[in-house]
Amino acid sequence: MHRDGAARRGEFGTPHGIVQTPAFMPVGTRGAVKAVTQRDLEDMGAEIILGNTYHLYLRPGDELIARCGGLHAFIGWDRPILTDSGGYQVFSLASLRRIREEGAEFRSHLDGSLHMLTPERAVDIQMRLGSDIAMVLDECATAAPSDSWSDAGGSVRRSPGSDPKSVAAGAMERSARWAKRGRERQLQLRHDPRSAPEVNITNPGQAQFGIIQGGTYPDQRTESVQRTIDIGFEAYAIGGLSVGEPVEVMYDVVAHTAPLLPDDRPRYLMGTGLPDDLIECVARGVDMFDCVLPTRNARNGQLITSRGPIVIKNARYAEDMAPPDPDCACYTCRHFSRAYLRYLFLAGEMTAATLNSLHNLHFYLDTMRRIREAIVFGSFEKLRREFHQTFSRRPQI
Amino acid sequence: MHRDGAARRGEFGTPHGIVQTPAFMPVGTRGAVKAVTQRDLEDMGAEIILGNTYHLYLRPGDELIARCGGLHAFIGWDRPILTDSGGYQVFSLASLRRIREEGAEFRSHLDGSLHMLTPERAVDIQMRLGSDIAMVLDECATAAPSDSWSDAGGSVRRSPGSDPKSVAAGAMERSARWAKRGRERQLQLRHDPRSAPEVNITNPGQAQFGIIQGGTYPDQRTESVQRTIDIGFEAYAIGGLSVGEPVEVMYDVVAHTAPLLPDDRPRYLMGTGLPDDLIECVARGVDMFDCVLPTRNARNGQLITSRGPIVIKNARYAEDMAPPDPDCACYTCRHFSRAYLRYLFLAGEMTAATLNSLHNLHFYLDTMRRIREAIVFGSFEKLRREFHQTFSRRPQI
Repeated sequence: MHRDGAARRGEFGTPHGIVQTPAFMPVGTRGAVKAVTQRDLEDMGAEIILGNTYHLYLRPGDELIARCGGLHAFIGWDRPILTDSGGYQVFSLASLRRIREEGAEFRSHLDGSLHMLTPERAVDIQMRLGSDIAMVLDECATAAPSDSWSDAGGSVRRSPGSDPKSVAAGAMERSARWAKRGRERQLQLRHDPRSAPEVNITNPGQAQFGIIQGGTYPDQRTESVQRTIDIGFEAYAIGGLSVGEPVEVMYDVVAHTAPLLPDDRPRYLMGTGLPDDLIECVARGVDMFDCVLPTRNARNGQLITSRGPIVIKNARYAEDMAPPDPDCACYTCRHFSRAYLRYLFLAGEMTAATLNSLHNLHFYLDTMRRIREAIVFGSFEKLRREFHQTFSRRPQI
Repeated sequence: MHRDGAARRGEFGTPHGIVQTPAFMPVGTRGAVKAVTQRDLEDMGAEIILGNTYHLYLRPGDELIARCGGLHAFIGWDRPILTDSGGYQVFSLASLRRIREEGAEFRSHLDGSLHMLTPERAVDIQMRLGSDIAMVLDECATAAPSDSWSDAGGSVRRSPGSDPKSVAAGAMERSARWAKRGRERQLQLRHDPRSAPEVNITNPGQAQFGIIQGGTYPDQRTESVQRTIDIGFEAYAIGGLSVGEPVEVMYDVVAHTAPLLPDDRPRYLMGTGLPDDLIECVARGVDMFDCVLPTRNARNGQLITSRGPIVIKNARYAEDMAPPDPDCACYTCRHFSRAYLRYLFLAGEMTAATLNSLHNLHFYLDTMRRIREAIVFGSFEKLRREFHQTFSRRPQI
């Protein structure tokens, strides 16, 4: 492993190949990265993608996917896949959910049907999906308070009568208890698959990552790390961030937490973020990222460039024959103008989403390549400074 | 040129390269073939695409496209482009239209604004777009009767008090008069561009095709051919078919009309059709086709295969891990299953439209390749018989 300050340049192996880190994982929520094909992802150099367990469990169903040979076979992607536990979507998407010690009861956002997600079931579902990396079920600090039904629309950060810190502590402690149950189930299926014939295991070499919770409280984060490492996973993720806290707070929590994690395992920061977040968190010791922003922003007509975001529908681009980012080598920038992309977006052509997504994903993946190279050459701090001089979070007018 | 019966294997040159015939042109209505990229089209071997003048004139506008260097530069496609005259969409899409000798007055389907499309304007617009092949403005036999406002919704085939044959004759005769005016304008711009400084000519080598009308009446078709050839165009198209007449009638009109056209020029059958229509009309002497079916059907979940159409949403495909067409070499069939495509379609993922479109377009383009090869090897009739034995128009249940 190469190092440059706290930044790390490594790799990890999976049953479907090796992933170079620091790595960005495009999000293929429902078994497809929106608006691009698997071929596009391979061309862009994506080495691993993320699938959402909640969505795939509800439709087409983990058992159907297992009968089809697992998620890799089903979606036609033979590189690594990481699946989340489904918990985050239960908290954010399901129409009603009730969190109890046993697990999370919820209604499907598709048809209102009632489901129960327990730590054990989250393992079983992901074993059927056959991802290369499974995440343990955790409770997000932003979740509804225990034993109370609540609408999904309002994210309950401060429920009446409980202060935020004790809500975070409760979620962290429950996450630790759930992590223990999830790990036990994973090891059972791994070592004695015949004890659970109802689980069609499609990828026996699946790894399982634990998740650190604890909100924005360093003492809770420290305790969460200790309890999760005591259980013992193949690697660890930092959860419960990028949920609305100020970005500097997020950076501080990462700076506190990452160094506490085992040095020889990849560290995954869940759900972050903007390009400068990637660089700042690599600088704090993170190795893996996922985020919907590059693809979601693309569909909304926002292109992320080395000079900052471009809002493509803006009238100033109507006859602008320059590529979105003159410094970018992606397919979109090599062949198409801002004028054409603006027109496609305003006309509502699907191709707009595709070309914008190709660009934004390339930008993210290329940023990671530059980061990896800079760490090897000991020039990461130089890259970090340059990036902040040229990249602006503010959209161009 | 190779021949096999009435079928012809040729090629024609344009300012953006040579096109092998018989050729199928994917339809890029608004300057983009829906759900696929220009790279995808190149990979599939599309040698020429079609753009719709009506749509591009209304948005983003032919003058804007001319300022951006023409349609090729604007959409990032450097192979040949054919543009229609805009007339067909005026008749089928515009919210109100009034056909007079001068031209077609209509309201934009986008914003209700009033526009006038004359034979001369159709030339000017396409000269600004800079397509390689421009079509002359014609009046479709299905159009509204002269000097009457009518809703676009109802296609007026038989207006009260006028029999269909005289309606067709009127449209044919007007088309011939419009063709003369359109040709004169084209030659003026070609030979004396300074006489029309308002027309920014972006492709001086543009060819212009005349269009044969005359409905389903052989005598009218014969007259239309004579009058249009007398005017003299680079090549000729058969218009006014695939507008609801029985397919055998369409074949008969093509069989009557194609041999009357100059032997040394490509013959273009506008807006047709299903794969067996392509083979049947090549057998009758047609060289060029365009049709929205492969892309439109793809978006609606219908895949066209060598064994007939597949309705991908059908429950029988839920766990069917076979490719859509086991005999197909397209990207979709090489990498994805019916089960995955069904799931993507039902989940509403954009990727469904892309993968289905890639398959259907490949099927059309590959059918044309097989036709061209068979003509060269004198086995076209064998291919035609085999195709009809294996290909069925009826969707699979």
